[in-house]
Amino acid sequence: MVASVAPVDFGILAGAGAPMRSFKSGEFIFREGDPAEEMYVIKSGKVEIRLGSRVLDTVPESSIFGEMALIDPSPRSASAVALTDVTLVPVAEKQFLFLVSRTPHFALNVMRVLARRLRATSASV
Amino acid sequence: MVASVAPVDFGILAGAGAPMRSFKSGEFIFREGDPAEEMYVIKSGKVEIRLGSRVLDTVPESSIFGEMALIDPSPRSASAVALTDVTLVPVAEKQFLFLVSRTPHFALNVMRVLARRLRATSASV
Repeated sequence: MVASVAPVDFGILAGAGAPMRSFKSGEFIFREGDPAEEMYVIKSGKVEIRLGSRVLDTVPESSIFGEMALIDPSPRSASAVALTDVTLVPVAEKQFLFLVSRTPHFALNVMRVLARRLRATSASV
Repeated sequence: MVASVAPVDFGILAGAGAPMRSFKSGEFIFREGDPAEEMYVIKSGKVEIRLGSRVLDTVPESSIFGEMALIDPSPRSASAVALTDVTLVPVAEKQFLFLVSRTPHFALNVMRVLARRLRATSASV
């Protein structure tokens, strides 16, 4: 399941004021149960979303994950692991509002990813 | 299940250029299987979302329904019926993009409604 959010304008993302974060291949970005306050856009690399030993999704470059953090204040419902060396741009609510005001299509893209993931989750549980 | 999208700025909605639409109590706004190209914000009145004889949701004033139309091009997955006399503001993709550029919080609100409805649907099917 590819969750593409192209075109993500990384120039605008940088303008949103969130510093990028890097993870080595195999590192956990977050774990199920962690507090959730931001989603991520993948600037480079690939991320796997896991629930226990089950792989829920593989997220490629320019795509997003962790978007449920913008919807409700629940802890992470799954874990995210760097499949390669990864560079991420964190997007908290404040940055999200900045981004959609500059690039309104970003909101629609996040909504599409959200709908697809929620459907896939209910289909697979 | 209340799907509030307050504060909806009806002044900005009017500026989005979509003329309002009125329905009498008991009228169908759309039926399951209809082509879906817009969502609606309820300016006044109350709307019931039905799947066959089952009531999926009752949507109050200032709230939205039909939001799946912005996510994918599938036909309506349920019917919407005016429970009272109703005035609606239609929001197609173009208006949505206009709205989120002016009121970025609107996007987050739609995302929250979307997530709640998708979860409720999978819980009840």
